[in-house]
Amino acid sequence: MDALYFEDIIVGEKIIVGTHAADREGMIEFARRWDPQVFHIDEAAAGSQQFNGLIASSNYTMCVVTRLIGLNLHVKTFGVMEYKEIKVHAPVRPGDVLTVSMEWMDKRASRSKPDRGVVLSRIEVRNQRDELMLSYITSIMMMKRNS
Amino acid sequence: MDALYFEDIIVGEKIIVGTHAADREGMIEFARRWDPQVFHIDEAAAGSQQFNGLIASSNYTMCVVTRLIGLNLHVKTFGVMEYKEIKVHAPVRPGDVLTVSMEWMDKRASRSKPDRGVVLSRIEVRNQRDELMLSYITSIMMMKRNS
Repeated sequence: MDALYFEDIIVGEKIIVGTHAADREGMIEFARRWDPQVFHIDEAAAGSQQFNGLIASSNYTMCVVTRLIGLNLHVKTFGVMEYKEIKVHAPVRPGDVLTVSMEWMDKRASRSKPDRGVVLSRIEVRNQRDELMLSYITSIMMMKRNS
Repeated sequence: MDALYFEDIIVGEKIIVGTHAADREGMIEFARRWDPQVFHIDEAAAGSQQFNGLIASSNYTMCVVTRLIGLNLHVKTFGVMEYKEIKVHAPVRPGDVLTVSMEWMDKRASRSKPDRGVVLSRIEVRNQRDELMLSYITSIMMMKRNS
């Protein structure tokens, strides 16, 4: 896997980052630890409420995105500066197969620091029916090559 | 702990949600699973890079917020609709003690559905020196009482 530097970013290019099967056990295990609300951890109670069954924590879905980016892209970065407009379009449910895509929206070299630049990207998470589940925009500080 | 419904939200009120000690082991364990970048998991490598040591994944910090809200507030909600402007102001480091606050910014009853309303809140995560680490705004669909 080649490292991805600021210079490699082509604005307008859209890439498929990877896919993830959202299994019931993984969703519940995550939620027990980080988001222990009844509709994330208790199938029976979730079914009797307004959600028609168990739904994933949106933190789980965001973590899935981060993990897939980390595993499948070797982005050379100083870190994420901002997440903008994280929209929860529809609930992720057990058995959903999530596909994460990333579109490079903009890039701008730093004026003060010659070794880096800011890249904006739009992340989309879609399910097996190509329905949009979660979307957001990230502002990342990326490294320049040989810096 | 009393349940918190739409009617209970007082715009302008700021509450302390809770505190969390960001221990090294917890940060690394989280990052190994969800954000396996070298500066989140490898102390030695992180120290030799531009970060001056290990830093927490911003997903970890967001999960800490969600967990504290779930444990310490009993917000009656249909879920988060949007996170806006998640800004990473400074890196969380091992040993930091994080305090999470929440300020109710706005509330608006739904026109079409009488059992609910939208609430905007601003979340801030500060460390033991009261330095701002992470901030964001959430848009939550809350339940009305006796709906």
